[in-house]
Amino acid sequence: MSSLITTLYKIGAIQFGEFTLKSGQTSSIYLNLRKIISYPSLLRDVANAMWEATQHCEYDVVCGVPYTALPIATCLSLDRNIPMIMRRKEKKDYGTKQMIEGVFNAGQRCLVIEDVVTSGASIIETTTELEKAGLLVHDVVALIDREQGGRKTLETSYRFYSILSLSTISDTLLASNLLSTKEIDIIKQFA
Amino acid sequence: MSSLITTLYKIGAIQFGEFTLKSGQTSSIYLNLRKIISYPSLLRDVANAMWEATQHCEYDVVCGVPYTALPIATCLSLDRNIPMIMRRKEKKDYGTKQMIEGVFNAGQRCLVIEDVVTSGASIIETTTELEKAGLLVHDVVALIDREQGGRKTLETSYRFYSILSLSTISDTLLASNLLSTKEIDIIKQFA
Repeated sequence: MSSLITTLYKIGAIQFGEFTLKSGQTSSIYLNLRKIISYPSLLRDVANAMWEATQHCEYDVVCGVPYTALPIATCLSLDRNIPMIMRRKEKKDYGTKQMIEGVFNAGQRCLVIEDVVTSGASIIETTTELEKAGLLVHDVVALIDREQGGRKTLETSYRFYSILSLSTISDTLLASNLLSTKEIDIIKQFA
Repeated sequence: MSSLITTLYKIGAIQFGEFTLKSGQTSSIYLNLRKIISYPSLLRDVANAMWEATQHCEYDVVCGVPYTALPIATCLSLDRNIPMIMRRKEKKDYGTKQMIEGVFNAGQRCLVIEDVVTSGASIIETTTELEKAGLLVHDVVALIDREQGGRKTLETSYRFYSILSLSTISDTLLASNLLSTKEIDIIKQFA
C-alpha cells in the first residue's frame, strides 16, 4: 500500500498543515480524496484495493457514501459488474420520490463504500437510509480510517474494513524522504 | 441506438404516465436515468455512445452535471483515461473551499456531460461555474434531448451533442411492440 500512499501524497490528497474539519476540530492532516477523480488510474487502484479487501464478503449491490466515495463505488461497480445504488442527500420534491436511487429489492445485501472515516457518522447516515429501504448492510469498507473512533462505532453493527490508517500513512511518508522538515514536524507533533 | 432505447425502457428509465417535472410542468414521459447505475454494462454503453459522439472534440477534462451524469462522466473518465473534475452544488464551509473539485488548470478545455437536457438550465449552471474557475467549455454532450428548448439555449454558447431525443425514443418504442395500448395512447397524445 506504500505506493498508494505516496501517490495520494504527491497529488495533494494528503496534506499537512492546519485545517478545520467538518466537526469544527482543527487537524494537522487534511485528506482531500476528491482529487483522485482527476487521476483515473489511481481511482481504479483505490477501487481495486477495496475490492480485494472485501473479496470474501457477499453482497448484491454497492453504495458509495455521498459524495467523494461515489466515483470509487462507480468504478468498483463497472469493473466488477456489480449493480450500484445511490443515496440521495435530500428528498427531491418532484418525480418519483425515494431516498435510495437505483434498482434493488428489500433483503439484498449492500456493501457500503466510504473514502475517509472519522467518527463514522456519515456512514451511519447512509446505512440507516439503506436499512430503512429494506437493504441489509453487513460490510463497510473505507479507504482511510482516521482512527478517531469511527471503527469502534461501526463495528458495533457492521464488519468494517479499511485500506489505510492515518498512522500507516504517517509512518510510510516519514520513511519516504518525500516530506519537508516542516511536514515531518507536523506529523511528529500530531503523533 | 434502438437497442439503447429499448434497454432504457425495459429497466424503467423511460416511463409513460403523468409526471410532475422539476419546472412544475406535467409530462407524459418521465426519464429516470438514475436507474442506469444499477446496470453497469448499460452505464458503459451510455458512456461509450457519448464518447463516440464527441470523438472529434478536443478536451482535457470531463465534468458531469450533478448528479445523475456523474457516474456517466466517471465511466468515460475511467475507460478513456481522461481526468475528471466535479462541480459542488453548495460551497462547503470547512476544509479547502472551492466550487470545482479535482485537479485542473485555467485554460484547460472541459467536456460537459449531462443525462437529460430540458431547458438547459442545469448545464448552464455548471458551465458558468467551470468558466468562473477559468476552464473553457466548448462542447456539451447529453444522453437525451427532451426537445424543449435546451438545444437552442445551449447552442448560443456551445457545441451541443445529444445521443437520443424524445421523438426518436417515441418513434423507436412505437415501432418496437413493447408498449401497452395505454402507453401508445399517451405517446400519441404527447406527439
